[in-house]
Amino acid sequence: MATISVSIVNVTSYTGLELLRLLSQHPYFSVTSVTARSALGRRLGEVFPQFGVAGNISGDLNAKGISDLVITDEPQQTDLAFVCLPHAAAAESVLILLERGTKVVDLSADFRLRDVALYEEWYQHTHPVPALLATAVYGLCERYRERIQGATLVANPGCYATSVILALAPLLAANVVDREKGIISDSKSGVSGAGKEATARTHFVSVADNLSAYSVFAHRHVGEMLEQLKLDARDLIFTPHLLPIPRGILSTIYVHLKRETTAAEVASCFHDFYAGKPWVRVFATPKLPQIQFSLHTNYCDLGFCLAEDGRRLVLVSCVDNLLKGAAGQAVQNMNLMYGFKEQEGLQ
Amino acid sequence: MATISVSIVNVTSYTGLELLRLLSQHPYFSVTSVTARSALGRRLGEVFPQFGVAGNISGDLNAKGISDLVITDEPQQTDLAFVCLPHAAAAESVLILLERGTKVVDLSADFRLRDVALYEEWYQHTHPVPALLATAVYGLCERYRERIQGATLVANPGCYATSVILALAPLLAANVVDREKGIISDSKSGVSGAGKEATARTHFVSVADNLSAYSVFAHRHVGEMLEQLKLDARDLIFTPHLLPIPRGILSTIYVHLKRETTAAEVASCFHDFYAGKPWVRVFATPKLPQIQFSLHTNYCDLGFCLAEDGRRLVLVSCVDNLLKGAAGQAVQNMNLMYGFKEQEGLQ
Amino acid sequence: MATISVSIVNVTSYTGLELLRLLSQHPYFSVTSVTARSALGRRLGEVFPQFGVAGNISGDLNAKGISDLVITDEPQQTDLAFVCLPHAAAAESVLILLERGTKVVDLSADFRLRDVALYEEWYQHTHPVPALLATAVYGLCERYRERIQGATLVANPGCYATSVILALAPLLAANVVDREKGIISDSKSGVSGAGKEATARTHFVSVADNLSAYSVFAHRHVGEMLEQLKLDARDLIFTPHLLPIPRGILSTIYVHLKRETTAAEVASCFHDFYAGKPWVRVFATPKLPQIQFSLHTNYCDLGFCLAEDGRRLVLVSCVDNLLKGAAGQAVQNMNLMYGFKEQEGLQ
Amino acid sequence: MATISVSIVNVTSYTGLELLRLLSQHPYFSVTSVTARSALGRRLGEVFPQFGVAGNISGDLNAKGISDLVITDEPQQTDLAFVCLPHAAAAESVLILLERGTKVVDLSADFRLRDVALYEEWYQHTHPVPALLATAVYGLCERYRERIQGATLVANPGCYATSVILALAPLLAANVVDREKGIISDSKSGVSGAGKEATARTHFVSVADNLSAYSVFAHRHVGEMLEQLKLDARDLIFTPHLLPIPRGILSTIYVHLKRETTAAEVASCFHDFYAGKPWVRVFATPKLPQIQFSLHTNYCDLGFCLAEDGRRLVLVSCVDNLLKGAAGQAVQNMNLMYGFKEQEGLQ
Repeated sequence: MATISVSIVNVTSYTGLELLRLLSQHPYFSVTSVTARSALGRRLGEVFPQFGVAGNISGDLNAKGISDLVITDEPQQTDLAFVCLPHAAAAESVLILLERGTKVVDLSADFRLRDVALYEEWYQHTHPVPALLATAVYGLCERYRERIQGATLVANPGCYATSVILALAPLLAANVVDREKGIISDSKSGVSGAGKEATARTHFVSVADNLSAYSVFAHRHVGEMLEQLKLDARDLIFTPHLLPIPRGILSTIYVHLKRETTAAEVASCFHDFYAGKPWVRVFATPKLPQIQFSLHTNYCDLGFCLAEDGRRLVLVSCVDNLLKGAAGQAVQNMNLMYGFKEQEGLQ
Repeated sequence: MATISVSIVNVTSYTGLELLRLLSQHPYFSVTSVTARSALGRRLGEVFPQFGVAGNISGDLNAKGISDLVITDEPQQTDLAFVCLPHAAAAESVLILLERGTKVVDLSADFRLRDVALYEEWYQHTHPVPALLATAVYGLCERYRERIQGATLVANPGCYATSVILALAPLLAANVVDREKGIISDSKSGVSGAGKEATARTHFVSVADNLSAYSVFAHRHVGEMLEQLKLDARDLIFTPHLLPIPRGILSTIYVHLKRETTAAEVASCFHDFYAGKPWVRVFATPKLPQIQFSLHTNYCDLGFCLAEDGRRLVLVSCVDNLLKGAAGQAVQNMNLMYGFKEQEGLQ
Repeated sequence: MATISVSIVNVTSYTGLELLRLLSQHPYFSVTSVTARSALGRRLGEVFPQFGVAGNISGDLNAKGISDLVITDEPQQTDLAFVCLPHAAAAESVLILLERGTKVVDLSADFRLRDVALYEEWYQHTHPVPALLATAVYGLCERYRERIQGATLVANPGCYATSVILALAPLLAANVVDREKGIISDSKSGVSGAGKEATARTHFVSVADNLSAYSVFAHRHVGEMLEQLKLDARDLIFTPHLLPIPRGILSTIYVHLKRETTAAEVASCFHDFYAGKPWVRVFATPKLPQIQFSLHTNYCDLGFCLAEDGRRLVLVSCVDNLLKGAAGQAVQNMNLMYGFKEQEGLQ
Repeated sequence: MATISVSIVNVTSYTGLELLRLLSQHPYFSVTSVTARSALGRRLGEVFPQFGVAGNISGDLNAKGISDLVITDEPQQTDLAFVCLPHAAAAESVLILLERGTKVVDLSADFRLRDVALYEEWYQHTHPVPALLATAVYGLCERYRERIQGATLVANPGCYATSVILALAPLLAANVVDREKGIISDSKSGVSGAGKEATARTHFVSVADNLSAYSVFAHRHVGEMLEQLKLDARDLIFTPHLLPIPRGILSTIYVHLKRETTAAEVASCFHDFYAGKPWVRVFATPKLPQIQFSLHTNYCDLGFCLAEDGRRLVLVSCVDNLLKGAAGQAVQNMNLMYGFKEQEGLQ
């Protein structure tokens, strides 16, 4: 079977490299074009010695020619492109790709929100191509499988947003949450979530042996959460924290229930919602997910504890921010766009 | 000036060793007796090479003879004793010491609660010496300075409890918290808080690159928090997490305020409450404490962010669990018991 | 195609769990029996929530029924068994399995040495079944491919030994090393190499923010290195260190060359030796392997720097101690034993 | 007693901040001037919230007014200055300070080497003020106590150099080392040794779960080691590695002895050399230093293992790179320059 050609725009980002690693094993897709702003004209195997280094290597990546790909400024024509640029820059690249007839999975925030005003409020600048917002499908496969199957532009969800939305969606859909008392997501992320840029904040010495909260009441992923969960800003407090680990997200989420509920009812609510969804695992209470369990996998792991009063619920949601929170979910979307099983190339 | 003699019961615990390190520098107290269950009859300098190792060392610990202290089974007569045993075992040791006329700072949970029923509920066994509970003073210096000055038995607060109580006490005292909506403390601790016992849970490979929530709705320190803050069990959700760092606690605390409030009012509430309290630092919003800032110090660092609606408040509270959360606070208590400044030996 | 049945003896060890993960993806083999001393009678999915946790999961491990495997005391009849027991215990288990007609890959040290005396010197006890030593093949695929293909008992090499032997073998085979001046391997390993037992030494607080040398002149893997490399004890100094990371080994190896040599000659020596060996990567000088590059892969990465005098050579060798240093190499051996490509199930 | 005034040039560097912390507790010296290139005109307490944050704080740093110090471009007149600039920039600043009559402890590499040619070889540029080299004293207190007491310019040794020179000096002075067989120092350092600049190399994700060798045969500290130990370049191989920890150095050093020697003789050699030197601790073999033991102290910890043949010796040397490897040693030098005990302000 002929493989489908794929390009990765900004391959040297953490998500770009993770996509490269995943696609090197995928049975139906091949990376044929990679772009970046630095290292132009060099082969991937030179820049990233971990991706095939010597003539006699018959290892995985080399087998599909990945170590020999040359980094270019602009992507070549391919069937599909993954765009791993920062927001605003991404939108411009996406527009060009779509005009060429290339399908796109955009990993930036540019097409995640339907509401331009919400976008401009949270991202503090004018949207470059608002006309495209209507075409874009929010790429949360567990909710929009059908729409993704027919999409030409998929907006891959944010990492924090994925962990929070997947945990809350079943309960909000079942209309059991007492929104009056407020929903809180206290989320913690590994450093790769902050991107590859070297800053005072991502310096090893700043992060090691430390924990810090940041962007309280002000993190950009909140827009996505509100729109997807149909919440008002005052319904949700989202507090992200920077963990001294390279990757992984754990969100501890607090909700009040409208009426006294049993643990079995809560479990049913999750099992029903995620029946037939291969990349969500629901833990049997009182077992709770830990970051290690979903690390290096595409799973979103969900678990919960219910207070004795049956009214107060603590949810724990874990994803690997580079997989289910980014590159893994992007491949899951690509699989759906081409009619393959969601699991292909992700196991 | 003659120094006051001190013994450390269970010196090989993390808190015992931290006390040893602090007391080796203290101008008014000297450790003259150390006990442990293992390493009986051996000198501290042999068992812990970091505490003075060779004849020619004139370093700090050796200067006060600490490396030559011999570990015994029972403490010798001293003016004061620090008890670093697990709960239940601690109470028995405390009783004997008090009967000898030794003042005691107990670092276990045995004398932290006034209410025996509460103790038996949270610790799941009969209190060994309930009669002593009335004598004991809860050793949170910022609240009970006078009582501690006259005490013979001080119950050193729990590490998590210290971080939570110091953050909430000013607001609850000012009666501005809407308890109906619930108070949440999402707390994260380094591994030394789990003690020195080697278990599957404290194995390096279990903790590194990980984060996990545990004892949801069931952590023992909740009893202390409720009693000290005069809250009902249903007012507070406390969720502890195990961080992949050796030491440090950060609590992110969520409260709803009864009425719309300004950041300046919140700041005043904290400044007024902690005026003249040397070991609490209040950060100017929007600056927030991080674990690194209070690490290796006796400070409790407090900071906050207020939502635009003036009703929802996120507090961040950090302590070093081995210092302000244990050994440092114990020395602070000892200083007060002997009429010294709270800062002595802690800078 | 019918799959070949495999059992894992002591599946709850780190290497046992890594084997389980690898085999869950292998196209030709299926795990049908797992043993352990604890958790008897329980399903794997219960004990390790990361291995399939809920009814609706169609994820990788569950797909092959792994989460439903029940832990037993003794292995059931299978075509092949991996033995992940400590030395001495392993030998006894291996004997029983071989008598049943089961092929064995033993991950312990029991059959790595041909010379019983060497075994008894380094492991300080009598070998339980010395008669089997002659049958066993040392499972370093890059050197003994043919012998492994016909073997019924393969002794999987030690993790440190793998990193050191693969780095030195090409140079010693080429007879360019000046043994008179001594060979030094300064090796550093992540904590999983020390096994799963919870001890004071593997406690998170003992390892984090630390580095320590141990077993200087006395590590058991030295026996293997000497026998495989045909060195005398006085030719090699091996110093292992415990790194504050979960997994990965880096060995920095120092050799003097007999005569002035060019970097191109050194490179040729390695390329010739490892031509057609898929799991060894040779870095182009001056690029050196780092632990991250081979982590979560089955590669042994090799690199070198040559001094200007052309006589002093620094080699760097990296493996993931749980993969090329244990479970990955075991699967590589199994592939050869059944006539498959070395890469199957390892990419 | 009136305190002696001190300025810190480039206070925002890791060593500058560590000096600030140390001097805030020193009985005889006070920091009265701090410079940096960024944050000009701002108070230290604002820029570094950990250094005193609120009006009611009576904590250590604030007590000496440190949080109120305003960052300036150029240092004000003080008795002594610590220069924490990169090399070349440092020399220019030192020249101006000396001309003003200010004593200087320079923490850069600019005045560590007596031999201008050696400086220009290792640092690859012309020395800005070679005339000052003759005045400068190499600030290794254990070797040059008298000269430092009379010095106006002290060149504080490099962190790696301190760990290597203190380990080797006693043996080389005793003339027992077989230099023909080569001396090897395999050294490992925490990330703060690489400085505060945020680069791809110091990004948390690059360092965590990793270990890498770098600058093999080419690290700049080698010049210092050779000059101080009177070795030729071919006598010593120095290989630095970047550890995934914030601070601490461990050097594993390999030497061959000229004749068969006992462990007692080796121990004597070290004890004699370091008699009366408070900041070197010699461990009793077979106990070896670990990074944790000297962390947050000014000690250099030394230990050794001797092979059975009495000819091959493995030394382990540990320092905290920010204390004995930088700021601590700088304070030790300052103490000597003013006739105080070496321990003042360092315990």
